Amino acid sequence: MTSNSFGADCLSGIRVLDMTQFEAGPSCTEVLAWLGAEVVKVENPAAGDPGRKLGGPGPGPDHPYFLEFNANKKSITVNLKDPKGLQLVKDMAAKADVMVENFAPGAIERLGLGYEVIKAINPSIVYCQVKGFGEGSPYEKNLAFDMIAQACSGIMSTTGELDGRPLKPGPSLGDTGTGMLLAISVLGALFRRSRTGEGEHLQVAMQDAMMHYLRIAFAVQAATGKAAPRAADTSVTGGNPPMGTFPCKGGGPNDYVYVYTSRANPEHWRRLLAVIGREDLIGDARYDSPAARAERKQEVDEMVAAWTRQHDKHEAMEIIGAAGIPAGAVLDTMELYNEKSFEDRGIIQTFEHPERGAFKMVAWPVRFGGRPPELKPAPLLGANNDDVLAGWLGLGKDQIGDLRTGKVIG
Amino acid sequence: MTSNSFGADCLSGIRVLDMTQFEAGPSCTEVLAWLGAEVVKVENPAAGDPGRKLGGPGPGPDHPYFLEFNANKKSITVNLKDPKGLQLVKDMAAKADVMVENFAPGAIERLGLGYEVIKAINPSIVYCQVKGFGEGSPYEKNLAFDMIAQACSGIMSTTGELDGRPLKPGPSLGDTGTGMLLAISVLGALFRRSRTGEGEHLQVAMQDAMMHYLRIAFAVQAATGKAAPRAADTSVTGGNPPMGTFPCKGGGPNDYVYVYTSRANPEHWRRLLAVIGREDLIGDARYDSPAARAERKQEVDEMVAAWTRQHDKHEAMEIIGAAGIPAGAVLDTMELYNEKSFEDRGIIQTFEHPERGAFKMVAWPVRFGGRPPELKPAPLLGANNDDVLAGWLGLGKDQIGDLRTGKVIG
Repeated sequence: MTSNSFGADCLSGIRVLDMTQFEAGPSCTEVLAWLGAEVVKVENPAAGDPGRKLGGPGPGPDHPYFLEFNANKKSITVNLKDPKGLQLVKDMAAKADVMVENFAPGAIERLGLGYEVIKAINPSIVYCQVKGFGEGSPYEKNLAFDMIAQACSGIMSTTGELDGRPLKPGPSLGDTGTGMLLAISVLGALFRRSRTGEGEHLQVAMQDAMMHYLRIAFAVQAATGKAAPRAADTSVTGGNPPMGTFPCKGGGPNDYVYVYTSRANPEHWRRLLAVIGREDLIGDARYDSPAARAERKQEVDEMVAAWTRQHDKHEAMEIIGAAGIPAGAVLDTMELYNEKSFEDRGIIQTFEHPERGAFKMVAWPVRFGGRPPELKPAPLLGANNDDVLAGWLGLGKDQIGDLRTGKVIG
Repeated sequence: MTSNSFGADCLSGIRVLDMTQFEAGPSCTEVLAWLGAEVVKVENPAAGDPGRKLGGPGPGPDHPYFLEFNANKKSITVNLKDPKGLQLVKDMAAKADVMVENFAPGAIERLGLGYEVIKAINPSIVYCQVKGFGEGSPYEKNLAFDMIAQACSGIMSTTGELDGRPLKPGPSLGDTGTGMLLAISVLGALFRRSRTGEGEHLQVAMQDAMMHYLRIAFAVQAATGKAAPRAADTSVTGGNPPMGTFPCKGGGPNDYVYVYTSRANPEHWRRLLAVIGREDLIGDARYDSPAARAERKQEVDEMVAAWTRQHDKHEAMEIIGAAGIPAGAVLDTMELYNEKSFEDRGIIQTFEHPERGAFKMVAWPVRFGGRPPELKPAPLLGANNDDVLAGWLGLGKDQIGDLRTGKVIG
């Protein structure tokens, strides 16, 4: 009974008015586009989403960052400082099912496109806002970026070496992590709306959203009565040895294999002893329980490292994994990018971009009937002015020409 | 037009057959419960979800970890090794809208509840599977936990000090991060199903899901041609000074304030000079451009640190933030837990748990019409045997009594 659209028809017919930039907002609307919604990005005619020029403005093609967070969308350029431009966006809001914005605090209201205004135009719209801090927070007016959200939410306090300073994880969890929670909420609201016709006002703060991903640390705190510690290479739960990144042949920055022996499954440790050629220690009381190994952490870790150092990380992962012990090579982005099985499975896909040519990127990772939805390129600035104004508002060629001449659209 | 259920009615009437444990699966079904679905967790009568006893089996109340990932759900205990128990679950699958499992590879098929079996019973079900590695991956049969997914997906390669070993971020992104992407896909499939009646087979691998959160690193690689580096306290994009965690008064492990000056907005740096009492340097060519500051990174960072060391992190955040520069104190889980404004806004809520009494935890962070959905306690093992078997299958008191006597249910 599954279709063969791989999920790309889930939201067909749904119109999203996308007034977002950088990442928290765009990551949300991009998922809606992958699931088949018509997502129209409204951008300023001068330069558009600043994400197009990550690292600073200037000439040159759109940055890969923009391509990654705006695939499958459309773009129109509207001058919001012109009253006719503002009216155009209101007319589009009247036709939209969803509107999303992630401007600085107060900006959308100053533009004249706040919730109360849009709700009066279209009571059944799902209107969505992303801010750094929530309404009612002492910092509700503060600016925030990904790293600020990660600092203020416990993420950094739990990331780093045990005796080191707080660090920022590699992923842009403050942005994309927030966008995903908003996407869930949009879809929930759309589902209800399909039955009741009711609109919704959704608001999410990046600081609040981060705590959702850190609930394991709050659980540790609830169990111990203390703030969760840094995870280092193990976990805020503490874990038990051997557990962590073990050095492999090569000696490069990512030549490590992660080995995990679960407290809940004593077989992991015994199997590992067989792999590293220390069958003699199977059942030895000095090492057999998690508590015993915790007392001899350094010795146990060194025993495992003595073996991992003789193997490259891929080999180590293969041998340890095949023996039924959770293990994983520490892979870098280039190794992942070049691993062909991701392309075979549609997890990494390539599209033709008008400026950059073939562009290969990570697609939506969830498979619908065996494959993720198909990637389409991110739009050039204003690429869809004509078709969107005709399709959404029924404007004719002459009317669109007048808007262009009057610099209402770019 | 918004209701006052705060989103808890979005999925009313939707039935979820929840065969998940630990976190990746449970985090997904919990969101569906928060949005109003009736989520029934099927557990083994002996001990249930091993997440109930995180850190090892034994007596005592359910671990906070279980409470955090199973709020608002129901629990029934079924012996799946008894053919009658297996039939009971099949009968429930016939009535369910969604089924989710995250057993080890091959386990659900060996149980006799694989996709083809369930689809034959209920063609319009949305059947969902979470694994560590995807079907078609060289590691498709390997075990995986949160940390393995983070090792194998680039997350650890980008986390840590520039010259340090790869580290694991504090959040359980491998689990909850995957659960969120699955929840989005479930909701997309449910939306389509409400229009077409079509079911769906959703599959997500934790390794694949992690790359979705790391797209900023893949963008860096696409721009530079090299694998993304560690983020340290800045970002895989490199950032530009001053940017990072600066030490504050107190000297504790989290006495730091994050300061970010954007390349795209030269005012951030100038405003910061005014805050730290170095107006004399505003416009000074040695520091005025991001490139100039990058050449004097140590000097610039020390200039900012000399000021931050004189203030505690809260004060520093307040002063710098109020001046229009993105800034955030590095907060730990205890500080967040005790910050009253989260409770006022419903981001942290308290419920009464039958074993633990009042339990305060992080709720769904997205507000629907001003507030997140209301938290309800996680169920005790088998708490809903009677009401679910009556409600879903129409079984009477005697029939349920027979199942209990026959040890088919716990």
